[in-house]
Amino acid sequence: MPAHRPALTPAVLEKGICSGDRTLLARAITMAESTKPVDQKKISSLLKRLLPRTGKSIRIGITGVPGVGKSTFIEVFGELLARQGKKIGVLTVDPTSQKTKGSILGDKTRMERLSRHPNVFIRPSPTGHALGGVTFHTREAILLCEAAGFDVILIETVGVGQSETIVRGMVDFFLLLVLAGAGDELQGIKKGIMEMADGIVVTKADGENIKAAKQAQADALQALHFQEAPASGWKPKVLTTSSTEGKGIEAVWKMIEDFEMNTKKSGYFGTNRNDQQEQWLEESVALLFNELMHHSTVLKQKTRLMKLVRKNQLLPTEAAQVLWKLVRKTAG
Amino acid sequence: MPAHRPALTPAVLEKGICSGDRTLLARAITMAESTKPVDQKKISSLLKRLLPRTGKSIRIGITGVPGVGKSTFIEVFGELLARQGKKIGVLTVDPTSQKTKGSILGDKTRMERLSRHPNVFIRPSPTGHALGGVTFHTREAILLCEAAGFDVILIETVGVGQSETIVRGMVDFFLLLVLAGAGDELQGIKKGIMEMADGIVVTKADGENIKAAKQAQADALQALHFQEAPASGWKPKVLTTSSTEGKGIEAVWKMIEDFEMNTKKSGYFGTNRNDQQEQWLEESVALLFNELMHHSTVLKQKTRLMKLVRKNQLLPTEAAQVLWKLVRKTAG
Repeated sequence: MPAHRPALTPAVLEKGICSGDRTLLARAITMAESTKPVDQKKISSLLKRLLPRTGKSIRIGITGVPGVGKSTFIEVFGELLARQGKKIGVLTVDPTSQKTKGSILGDKTRMERLSRHPNVFIRPSPTGHALGGVTFHTREAILLCEAAGFDVILIETVGVGQSETIVRGMVDFFLLLVLAGAGDELQGIKKGIMEMADGIVVTKADGENIKAAKQAQADALQALHFQEAPASGWKPKVLTTSSTEGKGIEAVWKMIEDFEMNTKKSGYFGTNRNDQQEQWLEESVALLFNELMHHSTVLKQKTRLMKLVRKNQLLPTEAAQVLWKLVRKTAG
Repeated sequence: MPAHRPALTPAVLEKGICSGDRTLLARAITMAESTKPVDQKKISSLLKRLLPRTGKSIRIGITGVPGVGKSTFIEVFGELLARQGKKIGVLTVDPTSQKTKGSILGDKTRMERLSRHPNVFIRPSPTGHALGGVTFHTREAILLCEAAGFDVILIETVGVGQSETIVRGMVDFFLLLVLAGAGDELQGIKKGIMEMADGIVVTKADGENIKAAKQAQADALQALHFQEAPASGWKPKVLTTSSTEGKGIEAVWKMIEDFEMNTKKSGYFGTNRNDQQEQWLEESVALLFNELMHHSTVLKQKTRLMKLVRKNQLLPTEAAQVLWKLVRKTAG
């Protein structure tokens, strides 16, 4: 690192982020993803300073099976919003960074055109987390982007494991992209994902695929018909788009704007955010509990207790009482 | 309660259970299901006394969709084992107890014939838990039945929510009953359940249904072919049965005996039990943690902290640190 570069203190990062410095924003997000205690302390301090500037965006989660056209959609969608003068942060999965590990000679970066727009900031998931697209610190990244003044934050996930549920818990609007296929029209929808969506978009509604896309739209509408009315009071819509032809993209944004207006009017928008904050608090406490459960003192005692349990000399429930007492006494 | 009845102390219960008193066994299981601290203390004391007598049965979990014929199967299966002189405990779901709440004028009790056999003890799930068929205290019930000298414990579940995963975590052998249906032969199998099974039984392989049953057997075998080899080193089998004609029932028991022999020889049987004990320990610690998270002192503080969080004056992660400190100080 060149000698004249200032140390990355919370004050320096705060100044940079608030003045639109994308490099410092990226550095802050990297720091938030770091597991080093010194970085975690800095981020905590930085976020405390930035808190009053956060919360002022609309947070949109985007999911769908590989091949549905997520990055293509995000490109045209992002460009539409950027043209309207909006500032957009995109927290995305970048599988190429996994494959080539950042090699200059590797595959073209996804969303290359979008990334060149001055109103757009794209952040690929760090290698090692690319599969899920979300990290333990996506929430912190969202706050940092909001402090930097972004109006719209897009969080992309590939739907591995619990990633949709995780993203759902940190966004205002959850968008599901689906593909019309041969035969079973609604392809690859994991159980429970449709019930999470505030909007469904059938992609690639162009050329010979238009008929299948319209069928998929009808199927999705019917499936939604049988679902419970969501807590939001918002009736999820099903739209079709063609990213290549640029069709249907504005309708998606209009849907999200309507959602924001409706749910802010009803109060659900704010209630949902509060619930998500509380969820974050509970998850953080659970994380602290888990850390202590893996503290060496606790693990040693657990091993000792399990020896007795295996010999039928101690009930697991009794062993748990002993272990829990120890966990509480152990300094975190 | 008549005046001459002795108080149900751990000593009285121990004596009764060890001498084959079914009434006292049932009372002990009821006590284990009670949430009252005084009952929990008694059960803890009782189980400590009985521990050396536990573990000596084979624990079999049985699941399958409603209508697959679980109770009919358990009846003929249980009768086969009882005729062989084995003592059997059946922890089962009894939906009639839900509907009629124990009314004498209600539906006939399931497994009525089996329940009359002296070698058989049937315990329906308490009302309020009938849907899942497992309670927080099924493990304790298993230990009590083993202390009472049962050779085989059958734990039935209807497959609601996480009940299969829960039962899988407390049994040696997990048996999945499936139904041959029209068209899609393997009906109603929840994702992930087949991977849990040590054996699959296609029921109702009689009359006009024989062909469909054989097809379902073939389909199940093929599905298993593509699954990862289980950790047990045991290759799951697929059998067909007809409970009404009494066919294939002995083969099911032979399969389970083979499983027991193989896995005891390889050491997996014991390792699995140890893992389950450890799982029970970890779940119990998590329960204690959860209890404290719902302690009034902690909840009050959480409410105070959430007020600040909602006003963007406190990060949820910071609030978590404060709350966790309090949890550890709060006497459980």
